[in-house]
Amino acid sequence: MENVEWFAANWGPTNLRVWGIGSDGNVIAELTSDRGAQTLRREEFGPVLVSLIEPYLSKGAIPVVCCGRVGAGQGSAEAEYPSVPCTPPEASLAAKIGETDARISVHIVPGVKQVSPADVMQGEETQIAGFLADNPKFFGTVCMPGAYTKWVQISAGEIVSFRTFITGEMVDLLAEQSVLKNSVTGDGWSDDAFLDAVNDALGSPQQVASRLFGIHAEGLLSGQGQAEAKAQMAGLLIGMELAGARGYWLGQELVLIGSPALNKLYGDALGHQGVVCRAIGGDDMTLAGLKSVYKTLGLDQT
Amino acid sequence: MENVEWFAANWGPTNLRVWGIGSDGNVIAELTSDRGAQTLRREEFGPVLVSLIEPYLSKGAIPVVCCGRVGAGQGSAEAEYPSVPCTPPEASLAAKIGETDARISVHIVPGVKQVSPADVMQGEETQIAGFLADNPKFFGTVCMPGAYTKWVQISAGEIVSFRTFITGEMVDLLAEQSVLKNSVTGDGWSDDAFLDAVNDALGSPQQVASRLFGIHAEGLLSGQGQAEAKAQMAGLLIGMELAGARGYWLGQELVLIGSPALNKLYGDALGHQGVVCRAIGGDDMTLAGLKSVYKTLGLDQT
Repeated sequence: MENVEWFAANWGPTNLRVWGIGSDGNVIAELTSDRGAQTLRREEFGPVLVSLIEPYLSKGAIPVVCCGRVGAGQGSAEAEYPSVPCTPPEASLAAKIGETDARISVHIVPGVKQVSPADVMQGEETQIAGFLADNPKFFGTVCMPGAYTKWVQISAGEIVSFRTFITGEMVDLLAEQSVLKNSVTGDGWSDDAFLDAVNDALGSPQQVASRLFGIHAEGLLSGQGQAEAKAQMAGLLIGMELAGARGYWLGQELVLIGSPALNKLYGDALGHQGVVCRAIGGDDMTLAGLKSVYKTLGLDQT
Repeated sequence: MENVEWFAANWGPTNLRVWGIGSDGNVIAELTSDRGAQTLRREEFGPVLVSLIEPYLSKGAIPVVCCGRVGAGQGSAEAEYPSVPCTPPEASLAAKIGETDARISVHIVPGVKQVSPADVMQGEETQIAGFLADNPKFFGTVCMPGAYTKWVQISAGEIVSFRTFITGEMVDLLAEQSVLKNSVTGDGWSDDAFLDAVNDALGSPQQVASRLFGIHAEGLLSGQGQAEAKAQMAGLLIGMELAGARGYWLGQELVLIGSPALNKLYGDALGHQGVVCRAIGGDDMTLAGLKSVYKTLGLDQT
């Protein structure tokens, strides 16, 4: 078995993903855990990480470059993040995780903050670093759809400004637990209903909370199907976001960095407004960003 | 013990409230159950009702006038509701509940529907009936704040049109389960933060999903307190609703019918826009409406 030279890790709120990187820079192991950052106390990060990668550890301290929520917690780390405008930050040595085990040496990529309007990213800065490694002269907007979708203005290799929308989490909460939950079950989908709802909310964002109840009523009164209802719900909330993020996409060069499913959804919505955008996989950019951070550490002696 | 002549009942989604009415029209018993309509199968309504009021039953069939979700369920009853414009509907005999026990004779107040835009009320029509009993010439808007806040245009004793906003449920879901949950705990409150957020959302409803995430970020970056965060969250969502319901309150005679807490919240938000409104207790109007429906049944021979 080829030896892992270092680990790239992305500690999200609900899961941990680790790539073991060999001496040629290739991924030779992929590991995941459901011990997400939001479920862990500060002292648990080290043991959780070690238990996942233990089979690959030996006596020397192996580097781990980690992004995501791992640098945050209890509201203290975030205030120290670099503030926009700034380049995606480099890693700093984080003894608080490494100290539990001499076999790992953990380097944490800090997030990025924006003072006004207040905003914060934790993980996306690494995806941006990965994107900029291949596109150093990019000038435009990166949209990163997710539970908390981020719109990021990039210029001259720097993050200039950004805004986060809580859209994805609202869609999930409404789908699973609101009066709409029986209206939007199932895997059906209607592109037409989605695009109509996007347009509706783009034009009248102030009506979204009543249009959402209207989906429930339409099901009761006319027996509207679940495919239409589900697509309308997502379309209304994404359309409201597009209305709020208009300055980020109107007339801008636009790149989507996210999962294939969310890239398609946002790409469809934006395409319907006449906006052409390139879509790139979020996991690929996370790994590319962690690799570019690893290079800056000066540890790759190969 | 004075005999109960009839029962008034309000079957909400999460609880059942029953008033026992004596021969002089006074409430002589108040009963509540947590067996709300959304937790019950159709055949359970009768037994749940009987078990609550059983001590008051005798051989003859005692009338029960019931409003709320009891007439709904499985998406069939709602399609048969009277459609706006209409007066608040009278009760119809509902054998499906009464049939389980000869000691009760249940009369259900149907809800009201609106075909376009699709909307439905189930219980609020009874509160409106109660309000109109005392204010037969009212011309204006009734706002009924709750999990699903309703704005109802009233004219010449009729419900002319209405819109439902899912605001209250969104506030609850975000407060309890979103990334904001740690920012908005506790009982604190800031009137200034609430009114500023209402104004913000009224002017820029399309920014609400990003302003919501901003509450989380403000807590991380500047240590903003929970009182401000909680008030901002409610203010943003109520402000967005006010933007969508503007036609219902701007230049209109306005009455709030709801709980004291929600009446105050909406009254403050509207007052800040220069709108003066009268506030009336929701439970009082439900009982008044059920009494006015009971009269139309012609059963009060006293």
